[in-house]
Order: sequence, then C-alpha cells, then structure tokens
Amino acid sequence: MYTLWIANKNYSSWSLRPWVLLKTLQIPFEENICFFESGRSSHDKFSRFSPTGLVPCLVDGKQTVWDSLAICEYVAEDHPQVWPTGRAARAWARSASAEMHSGFTALRQQCPMDVSRNAPLTEISRELQADIDRISQLWQEGLEKFSGPWLAGHEFTAVDAFYAPVAFRIHSYQLPVNAAAQQWVARMLSLPAMQEWRQAGIQEPHIDH
Amino acid sequence: MYTLWIANKNYSSWSLRPWVLLKTLQIPFEENICFFESGRSSHDKFSRFSPTGLVPCLVDGKQTVWDSLAICEYVAEDHPQVWPTGRAARAWARSASAEMHSGFTALRQQCPMDVSRNAPLTEISRELQADIDRISQLWQEGLEKFSGPWLAGHEFTAVDAFYAPVAFRIHSYQLPVNAAAQQWVARMLSLPAMQEWRQAGIQEPHIDH
Repeated sequence: MYTLWIANKNYSSWSLRPWVLLKTLQIPFEENICFFESGRSSHDKFSRFSPTGLVPCLVDGKQTVWDSLAICEYVAEDHPQVWPTGRAARAWARSASAEMHSGFTALRQQCPMDVSRNAPLTEISRELQADIDRISQLWQEGLEKFSGPWLAGHEFTAVDAFYAPVAFRIHSYQLPVNAAAQQWVARMLSLPAMQEWRQAGIQEPHIDH
Repeated sequence: MYTLWIANKNYSSWSLRPWVLLKTLQIPFEENICFFESGRSSHDKFSRFSPTGLVPCLVDGKQTVWDSLAICEYVAEDHPQVWPTGRAARAWARSASAEMHSGFTALRQQCPMDVSRNAPLTEISRELQADIDRISQLWQEGLEKFSGPWLAGHEFTAVDAFYAPVAFRIHSYQLPVNAAAQQWVARMLSLPAMQEWRQAGIQEPHIDH
C-alpha cells in the first residue's frame, strides 16, 4: 500500500493534489501528516522522509516519489484512470497540470491556500488578474472541449486534482471567475474528499502569519 | 511529424529540453524558431501558436501540447525510450524532472541560461549554493543508483534533457559541483545535439539585458 506524506491540510496546497486524487479515485493509501514548523526546521523535519525536504512524498515499498506530478505519473502506471482515457483529453490534462506545476506565481503568492479563510482580497493586482483570467479561459476550454462535468471529460482525473487548491482559493478569497469556472468550483467543493480535507484543515492548529 | 516551437537557442532553457530529447533520441520533428521580443510583445507573438504565450509548444496534427514536461509524456506514449525502462529508474527520473520543473528558483534567476557566456559569477548567494548542492547530490545519487553514465542509467532519457540547461549553466558560470556532476556535465556538453544547439545559439543576435 502507498504511504503519502503530507503537511497541514489548512495550508499545504501541494499535499492536497495527490491526496484528493487518491481519495476520489478510491485508491488505498496510508496518510502520514507532518506539520509545518517555522523557517528552516520544516525542511529538516521533512528531510527525514523526503529527499527535497518538501511535501508531498509518496512511499511505495522501497520506492520514494518526491513530487506531486511525478506521484500522479507513478500511480497512473498501475491505475490508468488517473488520466483521461482519450489521447487528446490526456494531452490537454497533462499540459494544464504542468502549467499549474510551474506557473501561476501571482495566485500562489498573493492567495496562499488557507481553507479556513472566507474573506475577499482588498485589491487584485494586475498579475493576479492575469492568472485568474488564464484560469477561467483554461477551465472553460477544457469543460467545453471534453463536454464536462470535469475539466477533461466525464471523469474526475489528475487535472481536477491539480487545480483543487485553486478551487479553495477562489472560494476563500472570493476571486472573480467566469460562469463555467464557478460551476466547476462548486462541483469540486461538493466532493466528499474536498469536504473531508477542509473540515480537517479547519480543526488544525492555525499558524500566525 | 511533430512541430516544435522554440525561442532563442542562446537563452531559452525551456525550449532546449524537448529539443535535445527529440534530437538525441532521433525522433523526427520540424523546428520552428520564434525569437524573443522585449517585454509583453514576446507573449503576444508566442500566443499565435501557444495557449500560454510561452515556449516550448509541440504541435502534432490537431493536438497542441504546451508544456515541456507534458511534451515528454506525450511523446513517450509513442516512444517509450523517453523514460528509463526500469520502474525504479523511471520513478526517479520523473521525480527529478518534476523537481527541476517547479524548483531551483535561485539557479534560474541568478544564472539565466546564456550559452555564449563563459565567465564565473563574482559571488554565489546562499540560495544559489543550496541549489548547486542539491543538484550535485541528486545527480550523484542517480549516477550511482542506476550505474550511469546517464542520470537514470545506460541510456539518455528525459531526465538528462531536463537538466541539459543546467549543464550549460555550470559551464558558463563555472559553478562548483562535485566530481560525479562534472563528469555528467562533460558528457552532456559533448553530445552532438548540445553542440549543435550551442553553435546556433552563439550565432544568434544577442539581447542586451
């Protein structure tokens, strides 16, 4: 059985991605949670199980897989439902997931995930607006092209998991997205795995930023 | 046949990754080069073929794949030699490639790829030193674990392509890496595809930073 190392459910957007994927696809795993410490000490603590000192990290017997996207690909080798069945949908889903993996810096920095937050931003910077616009456009494209209700078709796949933290952020910061994106956010927030994660996050000790 | 959109060979580290992969594995493709413009106008120009306004972007008939890592996975579906054959090596290679895809910010910002440069840095910041140390450690691990001479075993695969820009950077900025890493850099720089890329980069018009 897989062991998935994660950090605080309230804050760790990277941890959420493989967690919500495995939960929603009903792929069994054992969860190990390790809370953030201030400054460098999180890195030292996480380095006991993760070669980068970062989470998430998947352990499967002797195999360690230390990045969220690499975890998706690793799990997909045994569970092909991680990615869409059709080749075009799969290429789209992988491109969109990789775009999230290396991009959307303004959204990440200006709206850090905090599942217990429910308050709008006082100001939306130009860079943040550009990220929001791109996300709206991207999701609408996926939802239309592959006929929904998930980003790349009928089934929840890794690309939905990759944008799961953005669903929480849009809700928490009340970010303005188009109607198609709003519908997908509502669908995501009603997923049992997302509700379970959010409830656990709210109950965790909060960090004073 | 694939069409690969790239930018300046002197500067575009992201473009180099799929280019050197396809060339070295002798997978046929047509190259379309589109030079950077100053400021926002590169984005507008690249948006004519790439949905993010970024390069690289692969076009295969009606299919557009718009991220370097997604391109590797897309091509791997038809050309499994993109990733190592053994499962452990493949999981390692994907983790290491994904780590590069979202990380090493100090190295990227403080040592932007410039294949025509050959001059040491005057100072190495603490963050840059941490990136260099992690890269030395990571490469040594791969080279030892999978018995080399490439990062994940006997054959050149996508993880070597993912670190190809770092090979140029180590050479250009004369960055201090361990002996194992130096050997891999020398091997990379002697690859015909890397030499072809560098020669073309040197001959391009330079941008005054």
